[in-house]
Amino acid sequence: MELLKRKILEVGRVEGEGILKVDSFLNHQLDIVLLNEIGREFYRLFKDYEITKILTAEVSGIAIATIAAQYFNVPVVFAKKTLSKNLDRETYEGEVYSYTKDVTYKIRVSKRYLCEEDKLLIIDDFLANGEAVLGLKQIIDSANASLLGVGIVIEKGFQKGGKVLREKGIEVKSLAIVDDMKNGKINFR
Amino acid sequence: MELLKRKILEVGRVEGEGILKVDSFLNHQLDIVLLNEIGREFYRLFKDYEITKILTAEVSGIAIATIAAQYFNVPVVFAKKTLSKNLDRETYEGEVYSYTKDVTYKIRVSKRYLCEEDKLLIIDDFLANGEAVLGLKQIIDSANASLLGVGIVIEKGFQKGGKVLREKGIEVKSLAIVDDMKNGKINFR
Repeated sequence: MELLKRKILEVGRVEGEGILKVDSFLNHQLDIVLLNEIGREFYRLFKDYEITKILTAEVSGIAIATIAAQYFNVPVVFAKKTLSKNLDRETYEGEVYSYTKDVTYKIRVSKRYLCEEDKLLIIDDFLANGEAVLGLKQIIDSANASLLGVGIVIEKGFQKGGKVLREKGIEVKSLAIVDDMKNGKINFR
Repeated sequence: MELLKRKILEVGRVEGEGILKVDSFLNHQLDIVLLNEIGREFYRLFKDYEITKILTAEVSGIAIATIAAQYFNVPVVFAKKTLSKNLDRETYEGEVYSYTKDVTYKIRVSKRYLCEEDKLLIIDDFLANGEAVLGLKQIIDSANASLLGVGIVIEKGFQKGGKVLREKGIEVKSLAIVDDMKNGKINFR
């Protein structure tokens, strides 16, 4: 997606080992016009899949999934990272290993909001090692629902997530794939 | 907002002391059509305020703020609850006391995304004791920016937040105010 790549080159910041900061438009401040174009592009890519629900994980996927859902005209469900009074006791769980923090945490979706008939599109901001998507897939599998595709805004092509997911037969479509960021320069596939 | 009140009566669940669960449409599963009407209503209420940015706090405010921002045609900034590699070191901070967990935590916004010229609308899903809004106001004050209004989807009229904020002269507009939930029955103001 050219508009997205231009934006990444314009305002993305490479900081340290493999960190690409896009918090000026994607995951802290949100550029609503661009998010809308991103949502429209996900719809173009997945519109023939008869999606019934969009699934994402808190926090960064929520805004993107919400905007995209307007085009699909389906609800969004976001998996929660923390237990709270507001979450039902009966949940489907997935495990996510965080490489940056070296901890495994659980994500949960209330059993009320996924059923066997659901055909899901997962949407997230980044794909690095694929852990978040695999955690969400666990949740979908537990509900005996179907994962039809994964829409990613920025895939880090130099990390293993894309390969791992595609080798499992998961349909992953990324709007921008960064192949490397050597010397602070961003190269797209 | 009649559509919202009808939805709350239809699918909201009163669980225990003062807990109103609306996770089927507002903060776990998201009803995108209703969120759109909510966004449109916030625009109707605040369209003359020359808002430059919408501010919210993760997690539950993000989807609502994002949809509303489409009507205002301004960016969203959401305050973060956890420190991570993806957050700048230079931040404005606010403190939020959580009554349910009896802890005080910090919320942060990178200094890049707020400036003195900003005229802010805070949007959130619930208003109970007002702690989240006061934490966001601290952030706005630290940036010498202006808080023009607060848009709330559901105000718990039986808790003190609405009174506290309005007594400080803050313009709070709530789309539904629940006055009590005695015996599981929801009464609106």
